[in-house]
Amino acid sequence: MLTDDQKAGIEEQRTTEFKTRRATVPTLEDILYTAFPVLDHGFVRVVDYMGDDQAVVQAARVSYGRGTKKVSEDKGLINYLMRHRHSTPFEMCEIKFHVKLPFFVARHWIRHRTANVNEYSARYSILDNEFYIPAPDQLAAQATENRQGRGRVLTGAESEKILKMLKEDALQSYEHYGEMLNVDDQGVVKDPENSGLARELARMNLSLNFYTQWYWKVDLHNLMHFLSLRCSEFAQYEIRVYAQEMIKMLKKWVPHTYEAFVQHRLEGAGLSRGGLEAVKKLIRGQNVSREDVGLTAREWRELTDLLEMDLENPQKVA
Amino acid sequence: MLTDDQKAGIEEQRTTEFKTRRATVPTLEDILYTAFPVLDHGFVRVVDYMGDDQAVVQAARVSYGRGTKKVSEDKGLINYLMRHRHSTPFEMCEIKFHVKLPFFVARHWIRHRTANVNEYSARYSILDNEFYIPAPDQLAAQATENRQGRGRVLTGAESEKILKMLKEDALQSYEHYGEMLNVDDQGVVKDPENSGLARELARMNLSLNFYTQWYWKVDLHNLMHFLSLRCSEFAQYEIRVYAQEMIKMLKKWVPHTYEAFVQHRLEGAGLSRGGLEAVKKLIRGQNVSREDVGLTAREWRELTDLLEMDLENPQKVA
Amino acid sequence: MLTDDQKAGIEEQRTTEFKTRRATVPTLEDILYTAFPVLDHGFVRVVDYMGDDQAVVQAARVSYGRGTKKVSEDKGLINYLMRHRHSTPFEMCEIKFHVKLPFFVARHWIRHRTANVNEYSARYSILDNEFYIPAPDQLAAQATENRQGRGRVLTGAESEKILKMLKEDALQSYEHYGEMLNVDDQGVVKDPENSGLARELARMNLSLNFYTQWYWKVDLHNLMHFLSLRCSEFAQYEIRVYAQEMIKMLKKWVPHTYEAFVQHRLEGAGLSRGGLEAVKKLIRGQNVSREDVGLTAREWRELTDLLEMDLENPQKVA
Amino acid sequence: MLTDDQKAGIEEQRTTEFKTRRATVPTLEDILYTAFPVLDHGFVRVVDYMGDDQAVVQAARVSYGRGTKKVSEDKGLINYLMRHRHSTPFEMCEIKFHVKLPFFVARHWIRHRTANVNEYSARYSILDNEFYIPAPDQLAAQATENRQGRGRVLTGAESEKILKMLKEDALQSYEHYGEMLNVDDQGVVKDPENSGLARELARMNLSLNFYTQWYWKVDLHNLMHFLSLRCSEFAQYEIRVYAQEMIKMLKKWVPHTYEAFVQHRLEGAGLSRGGLEAVKKLIRGQNVSREDVGLTAREWRELTDLLEMDLENPQKVA
Repeated sequence: MLTDDQKAGIEEQRTTEFKTRRATVPTLEDILYTAFPVLDHGFVRVVDYMGDDQAVVQAARVSYGRGTKKVSEDKGLINYLMRHRHSTPFEMCEIKFHVKLPFFVARHWIRHRTANVNEYSARYSILDNEFYIPAPDQLAAQATENRQGRGRVLTGAESEKILKMLKEDALQSYEHYGEMLNVDDQGVVKDPENSGLARELARMNLSLNFYTQWYWKVDLHNLMHFLSLRCSEFAQYEIRVYAQEMIKMLKKWVPHTYEAFVQHRLEGAGLSRGGLEAVKKLIRGQNVSREDVGLTAREWRELTDLLEMDLENPQKVA
Repeated sequence: MLTDDQKAGIEEQRTTEFKTRRATVPTLEDILYTAFPVLDHGFVRVVDYMGDDQAVVQAARVSYGRGTKKVSEDKGLINYLMRHRHSTPFEMCEIKFHVKLPFFVARHWIRHRTANVNEYSARYSILDNEFYIPAPDQLAAQATENRQGRGRVLTGAESEKILKMLKEDALQSYEHYGEMLNVDDQGVVKDPENSGLARELARMNLSLNFYTQWYWKVDLHNLMHFLSLRCSEFAQYEIRVYAQEMIKMLKKWVPHTYEAFVQHRLEGAGLSRGGLEAVKKLIRGQNVSREDVGLTAREWRELTDLLEMDLENPQKVA
Repeated sequence: MLTDDQKAGIEEQRTTEFKTRRATVPTLEDILYTAFPVLDHGFVRVVDYMGDDQAVVQAARVSYGRGTKKVSEDKGLINYLMRHRHSTPFEMCEIKFHVKLPFFVARHWIRHRTANVNEYSARYSILDNEFYIPAPDQLAAQATENRQGRGRVLTGAESEKILKMLKEDALQSYEHYGEMLNVDDQGVVKDPENSGLARELARMNLSLNFYTQWYWKVDLHNLMHFLSLRCSEFAQYEIRVYAQEMIKMLKKWVPHTYEAFVQHRLEGAGLSRGGLEAVKKLIRGQNVSREDVGLTAREWRELTDLLEMDLENPQKVA
Repeated sequence: MLTDDQKAGIEEQRTTEFKTRRATVPTLEDILYTAFPVLDHGFVRVVDYMGDDQAVVQAARVSYGRGTKKVSEDKGLINYLMRHRHSTPFEMCEIKFHVKLPFFVARHWIRHRTANVNEYSARYSILDNEFYIPAPDQLAAQATENRQGRGRVLTGAESEKILKMLKEDALQSYEHYGEMLNVDDQGVVKDPENSGLARELARMNLSLNFYTQWYWKVDLHNLMHFLSLRCSEFAQYEIRVYAQEMIKMLKKWVPHTYEAFVQHRLEGAGLSRGGLEAVKKLIRGQNVSREDVGLTAREWRELTDLLEMDLENPQKVA
């Protein structure tokens, strides 16, 4: 995952300390620069940050000092802001990650436009021979109840054959990439008679499971938006594992905001007008049918799942 | 490039006409929906638009009617707005494209964040067997004077070998994609004993020269920003050809804006403080050296290229 | 609200028709350009649009033609997209408004950054003598249960005195504005001995209830975000009335999207983790206390309001 | 400008130091939190920052450590990035300001949408009795050669009369604001018989020269864009003075970026196609006329000003 040079670079940063008058978060400083592994060759690490929970409060109050209010009041205000979707105070904190991730994951990730990105350039540099191969327990069939997503895990001969194809094709595409560039693993010219293809062209032979890397900077509000979408069960596993790692970093950075985020976003739920109507009837012990509240079959099923009960026979637990 | 069904869909749209009170541009209507080929399997087509040159003027004036001012005044105002980088009136026009393009081009394109995108989903659907292979005259060596970009065109055995690798690897990666999915060219299940890999995973075996497609919607200001960067000689050929096709569409849509854009952006130039100082001396017939005006060697070379003369011997044309 | 010249400009636009191949919405064309009054001197009117309900579907499918699917399928897909917060297909439609509104309303409105704006320039032009005075039934006291918002309507002498101050101060500030500019109502120089103050300075004497106007362009997704926040009971009345007028326009433009928006956003509700837990207990006929589910007093009150019942005595309707 | 409480809050922040592993800029730390006065009651102060010159370089290189390259190489790379408008590495630094500014300045400022803002809420709080009155040497007439901007400074009776009106109207509008709210200077209820008008309504009686304040957070790229537009001679004086103060902070924060910014943006210039053609002829000692190069009269005048010479008689200095 990391070369010795890279490890040394990280270590050097971790051991140098400075004085600052800025808001500082010791629990986040503890893991600053450290690369946390994700997938088989990827990682995510925090390389800088600005602000803390109190900065959210200061912005909401447009205040002059660090604030003399009690922690409990700060917590309450953060909770209030989250609940009422007052997003601007959360935009006042910023965090910067360095991420190594497969191309096909990067293509999903980049759709979040309200962030800053600098990606390693394959026009300028030669990519490493690192590609993603799913662990056997992640090699799943197409979902059957759904046009997107995964179903049961593949096994036996089918699984083996697929893993073999993925590996061999990746290895071959990288070998040919080197041949086209006319350089060996050490970057040394192979055949002095040849010129080698331009890097901006040769890269097109690599498959979408090769790793790229980038610096990704985002404000706290947009980070939570990213995490709430990418931690969801509907997100592809290969991006979800990055989000799950980052959510631990969120907790270290802004614990009060994290708590409100879990309470109101991650583990909360939205009800449609019809869903709300059904809930009101049910808590009053009234019968309710799908047609009464104008839900589609799919919405009805989603509501059943959310409330974990058989809505038409409320006595039975679903 | 297009199936018969797709052609029929386009044709149906082209032959249906409606009445509208909105601003309408006949020269753009003429080519509406038509797919213009780019690269070996790609295309770009305009699928909708909003506003025209006059809409820029109306927005700048916040006016009530269609405007009674003369065309020459409108042209002058558009020219003034472009010259002084008053960008907001140009944001008041919008255009929507449907583009088919290789993954590696899409990855560059998407870095322009101020646009709306809907991409064909390879989690949901199966991609077509279409990939980009450079024409022989585009198969170029790495640039030598530059860490990115292309140098001379490759020829002979090296060129042939590279093209063969690109083609064979793409064909094989697609064949294996089908095997992983367990479907044939017609989407029919191949081996009923097997489940087939989830689409969201199988796609990772495809290489970066495969084609994707998307709807891309952008306002006129940001379109010009995109075009000025992507028509530049520094842009990779494979994205530049899209920009060049789109610039023809820009001309059909908003001819006055197009003219001002060419005059002030595409064919204009920026001078640094030192470059400006050098120019002032030169037009006064004074000698000037690189050190006098504090330019780096590279900046001096760029200025020489821009002015097309040997700056230290102004009598000699460079 | 509108001068005769302005009315004529609008009328001219309304009576001119063109042919187009673009998607067209007759119910929106019917009201195109027409100014709908808001507050005492304001208005909102649609001056252009791009796309319709079907354009949302086309973008979601990245399709080639107008679509052969049935209306019911389109409705279902739009409903699905809204429910699962797939926002990008809704970004593919665009609408442009011309709005006349008081400065203090404009200052709220502009906080929605994902939109394009061209405002009437008071550096360049002289503002009209038009200012907002609340109708007596909108002249309300400060809310008592809340640091922001309004309480009961003021009456009698207090109301009269305030209305008088508002009117007289506005009239005087405009009169002095004219004196500073040294022009009369017709824009004619008053005192040839004087120069008149620069417009960019004189405007600072006007109060925040004076009217400005702008062109405002936004995509359908961001329009709905704006409307859901600005139609809310927490929004100030003076901006809510604009949103309410615009929601009627939304309905005329994209009826299926409108329906899904009302169902899932406007009349739906969000539950926190604790709120969801409480609901689950209640529909199972179990007792629940605020402490059980970890809600604050305020959250508990909000949940009570949402479900319209006394949560600790579910037999009693709240 | 600042109350004693506010001064104490700032002082407390300034005297507290923490340890951090993050990049730190001592010259900026020196002035952190300090309020620098602007206009008669305004200020600007840096309240947080993220990154430094080296962070730009790291992002451009997507590097792992602090970088072992020499300072001269870093400077050269920053200069190159600025020259070629590679904006993304500059987006990797962030800065947060606290600004106190008149409403009419805030209305200009907020048009820069790529920034985060939290403004003091006049729905929630009562505004202070602070308003902007131009210094006599800034009280200027309307520009004569231009529809916007200022001409000569007003003097004598006209100046005195205008200043008197501005002051008296502001004082009166604030007095009536207090009467409407039914509170005195100390926030104590004046007349217990009255309710007082809601704050969200009363504020509309204040004029556009009253002061508001906000937290404003922006990345380095967008900050430079803001500064290049707002430091320009075309910007209104009252916003330019803020930009000028902030440019000193930019210099303290990222000195290499600042230098490249001045060289290539602030003191550089853009040439249109025609302007470039004219320059080429002039440095070759050829005659050139406005018609030859297709410039409008106004563009010709602007080129004359830029080159500081009579273009049709290059021997004569303009």
